[in-house]
Amino acid sequence: METQIMNQIITKDQLLTHWQGHRTLSRRTLEKFPEKELFEFSIGGMRSYADLVKEMLAIAAPSAKGLETGKWEPLDEDKKDLKTKEDLLQAWDHATEVINGAWKNVPDEIFQKKVVAFGQYESTGYGLIAYAIENEVHHRGQGYVYLRALGIEPPFFWERE
Amino acid sequence: METQIMNQIITKDQLLTHWQGHRTLSRRTLEKFPEKELFEFSIGGMRSYADLVKEMLAIAAPSAKGLETGKWEPLDEDKKDLKTKEDLLQAWDHATEVINGAWKNVPDEIFQKKVVAFGQYESTGYGLIAYAIENEVHHRGQGYVYLRALGIEPPFFWERE
Repeated sequence: METQIMNQIITKDQLLTHWQGHRTLSRRTLEKFPEKELFEFSIGGMRSYADLVKEMLAIAAPSAKGLETGKWEPLDEDKKDLKTKEDLLQAWDHATEVINGAWKNVPDEIFQKKVVAFGQYESTGYGLIAYAIENEVHHRGQGYVYLRALGIEPPFFWERE
Repeated sequence: METQIMNQIITKDQLLTHWQGHRTLSRRTLEKFPEKELFEFSIGGMRSYADLVKEMLAIAAPSAKGLETGKWEPLDEDKKDLKTKEDLLQAWDHATEVINGAWKNVPDEIFQKKVVAFGQYESTGYGLIAYAIENEVHHRGQGYVYLRALGIEPPFFWERE
């Protein structure tokens, strides 16, 4: 077991922990937004942070489920039913559970295999999870600028628990 | 070899390619800034994009060298000698070479081992490279907001070559 881990750059379990650590920070960032500004504030014609969170939600749990099952629905970033901060937080927590549940059944070998996520984005399994994480980091970083512009201090970048 | 790769979430070579792909996008983002705004523009009291790029430079090549040699200097984000966009681009390209050169000698097992980066940040070797990548993605995302606020279209997030 020790040898097996030492031969890995990162293990499947570590990748989940790393991902959920980022998701915890993204949730904390979401919590920092005042209700109104979450849905209305933006800079330079960009999307509101609520819309960026909806994109994160559209990618995260469906990616874990897709790697688990090999089945993909088209990407759904619209999520018209998520109308309040509380709606977004509840959807976030639900996604956390879905990811943890799916992860156990994600096959070890999928990370090096080709996947066509959401029926259109070709990558490896690892590439997909990296995309999910990094796309979230990218948009969360933008959320930090929104918060600073609103005079609100964002969470510490290294806080993941 | 094939079996070895299939047992990996990501290989050492793939991690380098992934990292340098991000660095290529960050370089392209840097190129989009007009000279003056690169050093002077910011939102909400944040640092200029030049300062964020200096932080990326302070982390990237020294992290690869540190994993290679086990030796660490304190983090140097100041970089007072980098005064123009051309200076930053040249430093960027130099770092790219340093990382590629160091990577060959980075021991396979370091990614699961404890490192104390820059003499003070404790993580695994993988955790350190993930931090380097994700901290860059985070700040580059902020650079995208600066560009949008300046009326400049940022590069596509998925362009990595």
